[in-house]
Amino acid sequence: MQIDLNADLGEGFGPWSMGDDAQMLTLVTSASIACGGHAGDPETMYRTLMQAKQNGVSVGAHPGYADRAGFGRRVIPMSPDEIGRMCAAQVGALIGIAALVGVPVTYVKPHGALGNLAARDRKVADAIVAAVRQIDPKLAILAISGTQSEEAARAAATPVFSEIFADRGYLASGQLVPRDQDGAMIHDATEAAERLISFLQSGLMPVVDGDPIQLAAHSICVHGDSPGAVDMTRAISDHLKSQGVVIRPFIAP
Amino acid sequence: MQIDLNADLGEGFGPWSMGDDAQMLTLVTSASIACGGHAGDPETMYRTLMQAKQNGVSVGAHPGYADRAGFGRRVIPMSPDEIGRMCAAQVGALIGIAALVGVPVTYVKPHGALGNLAARDRKVADAIVAAVRQIDPKLAILAISGTQSEEAARAAATPVFSEIFADRGYLASGQLVPRDQDGAMIHDATEAAERLISFLQSGLMPVVDGDPIQLAAHSICVHGDSPGAVDMTRAISDHLKSQGVVIRPFIAP
Amino acid sequence: MQIDLNADLGEGFGPWSMGDDAQMLTLVTSASIACGGHAGDPETMYRTLMQAKQNGVSVGAHPGYADRAGFGRRVIPMSPDEIGRMCAAQVGALIGIAALVGVPVTYVKPHGALGNLAARDRKVADAIVAAVRQIDPKLAILAISGTQSEEAARAAATPVFSEIFADRGYLASGQLVPRDQDGAMIHDATEAAERLISFLQSGLMPVVDGDPIQLAAHSICVHGDSPGAVDMTRAISDHLKSQGVVIRPFIAP
Amino acid sequence: MQIDLNADLGEGFGPWSMGDDAQMLTLVTSASIACGGHAGDPETMYRTLMQAKQNGVSVGAHPGYADRAGFGRRVIPMSPDEIGRMCAAQVGALIGIAALVGVPVTYVKPHGALGNLAARDRKVADAIVAAVRQIDPKLAILAISGTQSEEAARAAATPVFSEIFADRGYLASGQLVPRDQDGAMIHDATEAAERLISFLQSGLMPVVDGDPIQLAAHSICVHGDSPGAVDMTRAISDHLKSQGVVIRPFIAP
Repeated sequence: MQIDLNADLGEGFGPWSMGDDAQMLTLVTSASIACGGHAGDPETMYRTLMQAKQNGVSVGAHPGYADRAGFGRRVIPMSPDEIGRMCAAQVGALIGIAALVGVPVTYVKPHGALGNLAARDRKVADAIVAAVRQIDPKLAILAISGTQSEEAARAAATPVFSEIFADRGYLASGQLVPRDQDGAMIHDATEAAERLISFLQSGLMPVVDGDPIQLAAHSICVHGDSPGAVDMTRAISDHLKSQGVVIRPFIAP
Repeated sequence: MQIDLNADLGEGFGPWSMGDDAQMLTLVTSASIACGGHAGDPETMYRTLMQAKQNGVSVGAHPGYADRAGFGRRVIPMSPDEIGRMCAAQVGALIGIAALVGVPVTYVKPHGALGNLAARDRKVADAIVAAVRQIDPKLAILAISGTQSEEAARAAATPVFSEIFADRGYLASGQLVPRDQDGAMIHDATEAAERLISFLQSGLMPVVDGDPIQLAAHSICVHGDSPGAVDMTRAISDHLKSQGVVIRPFIAP
Repeated sequence: MQIDLNADLGEGFGPWSMGDDAQMLTLVTSASIACGGHAGDPETMYRTLMQAKQNGVSVGAHPGYADRAGFGRRVIPMSPDEIGRMCAAQVGALIGIAALVGVPVTYVKPHGALGNLAARDRKVADAIVAAVRQIDPKLAILAISGTQSEEAARAAATPVFSEIFADRGYLASGQLVPRDQDGAMIHDATEAAERLISFLQSGLMPVVDGDPIQLAAHSICVHGDSPGAVDMTRAISDHLKSQGVVIRPFIAP
Repeated sequence: MQIDLNADLGEGFGPWSMGDDAQMLTLVTSASIACGGHAGDPETMYRTLMQAKQNGVSVGAHPGYADRAGFGRRVIPMSPDEIGRMCAAQVGALIGIAALVGVPVTYVKPHGALGNLAARDRKVADAIVAAVRQIDPKLAILAISGTQSEEAARAAATPVFSEIFADRGYLASGQLVPRDQDGAMIHDATEAAERLISFLQSGLMPVVDGDPIQLAAHSICVHGDSPGAVDMTRAISDHLKSQGVVIRPFIAP
């Protein structure tokens, strides 16, 4: 059994930081790095890429709505084509900085409200996939498992990997339990780890409203910016390893 | 005799435009396109790149201080390394959008206060050249003739081309006549064109304070954002052509 | 018969301008000035306020979504309270600059997507009115005639004035004809002026889908940023005056 | 003996925070609140003003260069008039939000590079003082003791109060010891508190290069954003109080 651990990192801006990137980068195997849209700037990108390189962590671009005040968590009305162009500029910016560091950018994962929109709106997913392909057909998409993003990448023959969430409950539909409902969040690291191990063994994810469902998963998404994020991630990582799970990136850095 | 005509274009932002890019792109042979720093955004970059492609115009990246309110005309205190990273992100962003359009970005020309600083400060010039090289060693630098930018590129074995200004007076030192002094600006298109033709024939540029000087020039920079810019550019272009000068890009698009 | 002419002005940013404010300010009697949200910055606000003062034009604040790339024309998801605070900061900023110029800010008119949302969403209208009242209970609201903004201000006993559009067609519901339908725009200045005079005489506005409707109107909104805006405004102004209409601000500057 | 404790607060932006404002506001008696320039936005201003009000803390505006990426620590080339207008817009914005909270803004203290420039450049200090006076002649200036800011306010008959730094060493010239020299920082809270008490008793500040100097001080500036800031502030506050010093704002809230 093997799996990747990914977190959204490099989400500071100017003097401000978000979470403890240095610690998280000793634990995850893939880093989805903000590109100056919802967060990030050249200095933050550079610093995060350097730390990722030093830790042998695989690097992805994490484009989001260019709305720092809203941290990319608000849907900004844009056409799919505008979204594709926004992503192209952001992915290009990270690739530019990565060239200074000497690390390859191997995948793209849209952030926040953009990621959620791409998960359910095929036209948006198609636009992002098309932009990524035109930049580099070898660039992979990291998609939420079972979503339009995954489908769009597959349809375009773009490499695609799927992620599940370490600390979120699932519905029988494959959607996440909304944050305002019971079972939305798993706060206990041991419980989260045991669920993940069970999933890795069976391919079946427990849900709050029915029988376990099948999900593809190449990566487990852990949150880097919540209080206790580092401890949670370490506990999950340790537990997985103790059960013989090999933690390694879905694309080698 | 042959020469390139370049202008700074794509310098709008959001709802705002700067100059008449569509017209300018029928006249110039190289377009230095703003990258979202001092001006530009994904939509403006895309639109300008499309127009450049349609007109067979060669494309360069035109990074500047990330200071839209100051249009990149104010020196923002930054270390050379910070400047290199800022340029890498901006050049990368334009390359990302250019991939959608299907045009190569062939050169980099720093904008405004950044270009002037790179012209006189070798460390800044070195940092920009190093960043450009790391992104792509085939990317050329378009430098103001006779400056540290030119030297830095040459020392790094990066392809370098030199520009002179169509409408600016020169000093014997090779510097431009400061804008607040007599002879700084050449307002008459015929006079500007005759000077350029004389220069192309002799390699000697008249100066306001001594004997003509030798300058290398692969490109003539025309301004795209001043009133009458299009008329001035057309007059210069027509005059050059009527004297047998071939106007073509220093790097084919 | 008397009426105010208002236009949205000061909608440049940094090096960029929007429309010909200097000319428009010789024609209108009220200027709704951008406050640094969707457009505007301290220099632009100052310059516009100075020109308004020199022309004896009444001044209002024109807050909008803090989304320059979208020019305030996109709805940014925000709660009514967040909208109230955003407006308070923007109105305060304009009042701060107006203190330097020595002109009173007499009214507030929300811009673009924010104005349209406030027109139909009472909670948003209430939040804007409440913020304006807390800043200064004498500050008026300039609302689109017949909308929730007007109602909200009236309910709060805040001074309120209503505007109609010089160049837009109306529906029997009091709404504007959507821009993608026939009759949305009135392009001919004479036709626009004749409609306005007929309305001023009768209080009845012709509509595209029924009998003329009653509308309150203290001000006519003319557009400052479209091609031909100055000519259209001058033609309307001249025509109104020639028919004995007195053009003057709804609040004296 | 009595003195004010002030800190720069509300220096987050969007999703990002800076220091522990909630704790600091239980310790200081004056809060210099960022106004959306170098930091801050309507939500952050509102939240900080609410917390200040709940703690009975006096409120000042803390304008800075509109350079979030540089946190207002870089000098952006601007004329004194441009600086005055920038400050007017920022102070106005905070006053706008403060109206929603129902707290008066009682003073202005320029931030970072702007504060340092105003301390040494009389034209800049004059421009800031003039802008503040035009907004409200009762608004005070909080100036670094012994600087051009203090002089400018005094010359304009604007109320002025002076601050000293709790954790910085002084030179005989009255300037702070530069951060790269020995004695620049006082890291021990007890040492800092004892120095302050000695100063309050004698009016004389020890310096690293000569005899103690006389300084006026109405407020002690403590830093809110360094690690240990809360502990340092609490230790200083406790120590001062234990020696009978009354800690209270220089202007009552």
